[in-house]
Amino acid sequence: MTSQHSTAPVILTGDRPTGPLHLGHFVGSLRNRVAYQDSYRQFVMLADAQALTDNMDDIGKVHRNVVEVALDYLAVGLDPAKTTILIQSQIPELAELTFYYLNLVTVARLERNPTVKEEIKHRGFERDIPAGFLTYPASQAADITAFKASLVPVGEDQIPMIEQTNEIVRRFNRVAQKDVLVEAKALVPEVGRLPGIDGKAKMSKSLGNTINLGASAAEITAAVKMVYTDPLHLRVADPGHLEGNVAFIYLDAFDPDREGLQAMKEHYVRGGLGDSVVKKRLEGILQDMLAPIRARREEFAKDKGQVMQILREGTAKAREVAAQTTDEVRRALGLSYF
Amino acid sequence: MTSQHSTAPVILTGDRPTGPLHLGHFVGSLRNRVAYQDSYRQFVMLADAQALTDNMDDIGKVHRNVVEVALDYLAVGLDPAKTTILIQSQIPELAELTFYYLNLVTVARLERNPTVKEEIKHRGFERDIPAGFLTYPASQAADITAFKASLVPVGEDQIPMIEQTNEIVRRFNRVAQKDVLVEAKALVPEVGRLPGIDGKAKMSKSLGNTINLGASAAEITAAVKMVYTDPLHLRVADPGHLEGNVAFIYLDAFDPDREGLQAMKEHYVRGGLGDSVVKKRLEGILQDMLAPIRARREEFAKDKGQVMQILREGTAKAREVAAQTTDEVRRALGLSYF
Repeated sequence: MTSQHSTAPVILTGDRPTGPLHLGHFVGSLRNRVAYQDSYRQFVMLADAQALTDNMDDIGKVHRNVVEVALDYLAVGLDPAKTTILIQSQIPELAELTFYYLNLVTVARLERNPTVKEEIKHRGFERDIPAGFLTYPASQAADITAFKASLVPVGEDQIPMIEQTNEIVRRFNRVAQKDVLVEAKALVPEVGRLPGIDGKAKMSKSLGNTINLGASAAEITAAVKMVYTDPLHLRVADPGHLEGNVAFIYLDAFDPDREGLQAMKEHYVRGGLGDSVVKKRLEGILQDMLAPIRARREEFAKDKGQVMQILREGTAKAREVAAQTTDEVRRALGLSYF
Repeated sequence: MTSQHSTAPVILTGDRPTGPLHLGHFVGSLRNRVAYQDSYRQFVMLADAQALTDNMDDIGKVHRNVVEVALDYLAVGLDPAKTTILIQSQIPELAELTFYYLNLVTVARLERNPTVKEEIKHRGFERDIPAGFLTYPASQAADITAFKASLVPVGEDQIPMIEQTNEIVRRFNRVAQKDVLVEAKALVPEVGRLPGIDGKAKMSKSLGNTINLGASAAEITAAVKMVYTDPLHLRVADPGHLEGNVAFIYLDAFDPDREGLQAMKEHYVRGGLGDSVVKKRLEGILQDMLAPIRARREEFAKDKGQVMQILREGTAKAREVAAQTTDEVRRALGLSYF
């Protein structure tokens, strides 16, 4: 860790390792993390313990995807010399902090959390939610505070989770009668959610509408063919619509030639521009963007031992920080004896 | 640990260190533990982390009482060579197991737990219960299973907690596809709850109706004077009643001279026996019983460093066992990488 880093603000991000990462992750988080690692002291967490909450029926999936997601990280350019990549379950201090924080939040408050409410609905849990799901905000508070992160990149919908963390922080510091824990700020990225290739609001593995970061050239070609455009744009001569047109949304996200893109949009709206031309432009951009990522991914994948070594070192480094915080927490709670 | 112990059934008991132990504890649990330590591999837990659940407003109290309760243990004859005394918070594996078990129990199931329901009512929590209180059965399951205890001495009212632990055990073993965890049996002591000196159903520090194990001779005298007898027994000549008569309930619990006690009861019921005679007998018995306990307590209290050393060694020994179980749990969940 360089001296620049040791005084830099701490930022914590991460993913539940339940499947390969895709363009949605790239736009929503990965691209930013590559930038953050130069200005912040960045921890990126593989939240395997968290992923178990609703994967107890397929525990092998979580284990397998830890190394796959790590490969995605390395492929997009997260640099282990700048970013600490850690495996959540290998830092038991995070469970210990969760245990303490459960005393600092009421059941009623957890049930009011809009993010939890939304997810309960989304996953169809109703009253039969696993307790670990209801208490997930306390676990997230543990992750954030263990590293004393002051910045947490999240989508708009996750802001209530950060608020809940900060409530726990304030309550803890009041109990401890000193500022042991640090409040965090949500860092909401400018570019939001990327729609799926089918036009659905969210690109998601479970919806089968993704383009994975490790996609082969042929998979990219096939995916772009399926990209949803304008259902009213039947003949080339017809005026086209940009709203909800996934091809243009992707071009907005990735096309470096903003002027050329603007001209193409005007032509499309005017009429006389076929979808195939638009998709050809999109495919070229995606192929150019993903080819080096795929190449780096394949390179790292040749030596998974090296990847595990990176995870081992990152986890050890992160654990030192978490252990230090947990020690302070234990002392503040009077749970220190020997 | 003798070879006899290593194959003996494992028994786990413990107390929340929130105040000195009293005659109620002695009858309900401590006396049995002194017997158990010769036949079982016994772990006795100072549940300090658990005690925080509803003592976040007075964290110093829990810390202070750890050593006080340990003194009570040693005073009644728990022998560190036979019984492993441990401090819960110093075994972070217990929090880690709790964290995993939260995924194996639903919120609805926790809310249905009769013991939790009763305690919520008793403590006046309503909807504002700390989440740590609702999830307490998962924590108790962690404590029991960490040591692979097959026997857990509890009162009748705690039997649902053991059932809940066993549900978690079965669910875990199903997920793991092998018998990693061990089911436990509740061991309900024959002598149940001791009433308070005021005649209330439960002897309890918060009700102020206890006789503490460390009570001085003068405190015992004063307490026996206040012991509730028969409000209808106004004159010595009147017939007395035994039901709800705390003096006789205590004699039933502690008087070694069963024949003499039986004769006294008959005399009391017949009429012609004053309360002061009954109380004198009771006081003599309590003084005789508590004097050596108080003496041992004072002896150990002279060297608290030695007491802490006993706790340190017991906790280290217990942690080895818990760490072994947690390692098996982590492996079974696929949370093992390096």
